[in-house]
Amino acid sequence: MRREGIALVAHSGGPTAVINASLLGIVEESRDTFKGLYGARYGLEGVLSEEFIDLHSEPTELMRQIGNAPSSALGTSRLAASDQDLDRIIDVFKKHEVRVFFYTGGNGSMGTAQQIQSAAADRKYDLQVIGVPKTIDNDLFATDHTPGFPSTARFFASALRDIGADNLALRNQVEIVEILGRNAGWLAASTALARHHGDDAPHLIYFPETRLSLDTFLADVERVFSRLNRCVVAVCEGQLNDQGEPFGADVRGGSRGSLAQNLAHRLATLTTQHLGLRARSEKPGLLGRCCGPFALQSDRDEAKACGQAAVRIALAGQSGVMVTLHCDRDPYRYHTGSVSFSDVAFRERTLPVEYRSPSGNDVTPAFVTYAAPLIGMIQPYACFRRLLSDRNLT
Amino acid sequence: MRREGIALVAHSGGPTAVINASLLGIVEESRDTFKGLYGARYGLEGVLSEEFIDLHSEPTELMRQIGNAPSSALGTSRLAASDQDLDRIIDVFKKHEVRVFFYTGGNGSMGTAQQIQSAAADRKYDLQVIGVPKTIDNDLFATDHTPGFPSTARFFASALRDIGADNLALRNQVEIVEILGRNAGWLAASTALARHHGDDAPHLIYFPETRLSLDTFLADVERVFSRLNRCVVAVCEGQLNDQGEPFGADVRGGSRGSLAQNLAHRLATLTTQHLGLRARSEKPGLLGRCCGPFALQSDRDEAKACGQAAVRIALAGQSGVMVTLHCDRDPYRYHTGSVSFSDVAFRERTLPVEYRSPSGNDVTPAFVTYAAPLIGMIQPYACFRRLLSDRNLT
Repeated sequence: MRREGIALVAHSGGPTAVINASLLGIVEESRDTFKGLYGARYGLEGVLSEEFIDLHSEPTELMRQIGNAPSSALGTSRLAASDQDLDRIIDVFKKHEVRVFFYTGGNGSMGTAQQIQSAAADRKYDLQVIGVPKTIDNDLFATDHTPGFPSTARFFASALRDIGADNLALRNQVEIVEILGRNAGWLAASTALARHHGDDAPHLIYFPETRLSLDTFLADVERVFSRLNRCVVAVCEGQLNDQGEPFGADVRGGSRGSLAQNLAHRLATLTTQHLGLRARSEKPGLLGRCCGPFALQSDRDEAKACGQAAVRIALAGQSGVMVTLHCDRDPYRYHTGSVSFSDVAFRERTLPVEYRSPSGNDVTPAFVTYAAPLIGMIQPYACFRRLLSDRNLT
Repeated sequence: MRREGIALVAHSGGPTAVINASLLGIVEESRDTFKGLYGARYGLEGVLSEEFIDLHSEPTELMRQIGNAPSSALGTSRLAASDQDLDRIIDVFKKHEVRVFFYTGGNGSMGTAQQIQSAAADRKYDLQVIGVPKTIDNDLFATDHTPGFPSTARFFASALRDIGADNLALRNQVEIVEILGRNAGWLAASTALARHHGDDAPHLIYFPETRLSLDTFLADVERVFSRLNRCVVAVCEGQLNDQGEPFGADVRGGSRGSLAQNLAHRLATLTTQHLGLRARSEKPGLLGRCCGPFALQSDRDEAKACGQAAVRIALAGQSGVMVTLHCDRDPYRYHTGSVSFSDVAFRERTLPVEYRSPSGNDVTPAFVTYAAPLIGMIQPYACFRRLLSDRNLT
């Protein structure tokens, strides 16, 4: 089937380890279908400036390699389209005969996709808009999970295992590790997969879904430290205290509100000030979303399948929908589906209460059941049983 | 050859990804030699408290697995021995018939090893003390490099490649990445191995060997950003400004002086304040020294060889020396040697001037020649040439 008109793909928001795999899925599935497939350079900015890459003319082997590479090979942008931008976007689409627009992003991007869809309809321009899910934060509704989340979750779970091994060997220190995730605790929760014994790190996990008083935090740390002589804390970058503030950390404004820039450092400082304990902080930060060596092949496969599904949806004549993933867990299987933009746009799926322990500082077994098939086994390190004090042995 | 008396091994200072490989080398090389081989739990603290692990009675397969695991399986300590501690250490050695002491650590630890050697001599106690080199900072004299450095260098070089790929895709942002290394720029320098094209990250690398004025830093960042619309900076945690202060960052006291805890965050804040640019900071921190997935087999092999050499030196009757590595680079080969404690104790080998470019913000080709065989190739990611603007193409 060959269709008249050009298809265009653009990336939006922060890169992930597998967004290029979705791009590869679109490229491969659309050969011999549309009149052409363009990629916009740097997301909507490349649409506005008419900077496109002719994707079907790129060498097959290069595309395959790009499909395995982290970050966005097209470039991406956080631009939120103004009314003027929407006018311009439709004009550019008309000029270049763009009839299908694939937009890869999170809930904010699906809102923009919806606006572009409406703008085209208002102008009686025949355009299909299809969303491809992408966010490490895993905060999209209607999909089991989002491509990019499993690889980043694996990075942070592995990081907590490794920092935990360091903390066990050097002891006498509190380690606060800052986890990505903005307002959603999915990635912070995933660090629980690092544990194999009851006293393995992380010893405390905090979720931005619940406010956390400094007193509770300090009491938790003191309790763990007095028992183990060590303590590793996983805290989401978006964590707020009971006054709704980030514990006095520096904040920066962003397209979706302010976010602390040095939360873990601030909590480490408070730990030393109030408890007199030696405390450090680590902030792997963006390394967690673009770390090539931790990209999971299963995550790449699903991301690619989402790209392929987007093309099939377009060829079937649908529009105004985002591709979704639906999964069985025993045994693990996935298939793709779709959902209307209006069910996902600008809506944030935070970590549900059934995945958070009543104590507020751990996950539930139900979360591990959810996440384990996505993240895989985090192999424990061999150790002497005698290193662990008796009370540490499980 | 079977010798009377017990051999004891202890770890000192921060763990590394391969310190357990040195332990494995000692365990394997010493079978059927000493009357017994003990490991001290948590370094000198375990000596003082007489807490030992009988290493020859541990299962061979477990030892092999531990040899591949990062962090210290014995536990380690930063204890600097007081005169009272030295008395106690010799008493414990007498009580347990310890005649050979293997101490694994950096330049401070070799100073302690020397003190223990002297304390035994003063008390007419026949004791051999052999040092095994270990530090990610690579700041020991008389050895080509230190086990643990290559794996951590690879972690940070890989991290800069990945953060660079993220920064290229999202652009319009300055990224400050904090690198371990205290007062020595070896690890910061190693991030240069991430580059394959002239405009790849890191765009600026700073070394603590030279003070850096805020004006110079800001001018460097502005120059890079105005040309590329992006900028990734690698800065060592021990970097000081021209007043000898860490740019207003928080410092904590340590056994070897104060060290900034949030240097990269502080520099990002100053970048935004003075240049009006969006800036972020990342601090992988301790993850860099214990990250199992980045441990190099070549680093493990050399670490193990150092442990084996320590045993051979002991059996040859030597004492008061540390094992060293000596390398040819074309083709790469290594062999072990030894050096007197007095040549390495409490002396810090910083990054030599011939490895730092006159500009103060990059390495020289000579450094790459030195480091590349240790760290290996950091594979570049496939990308569309069209993504890079023309001025970015090399």
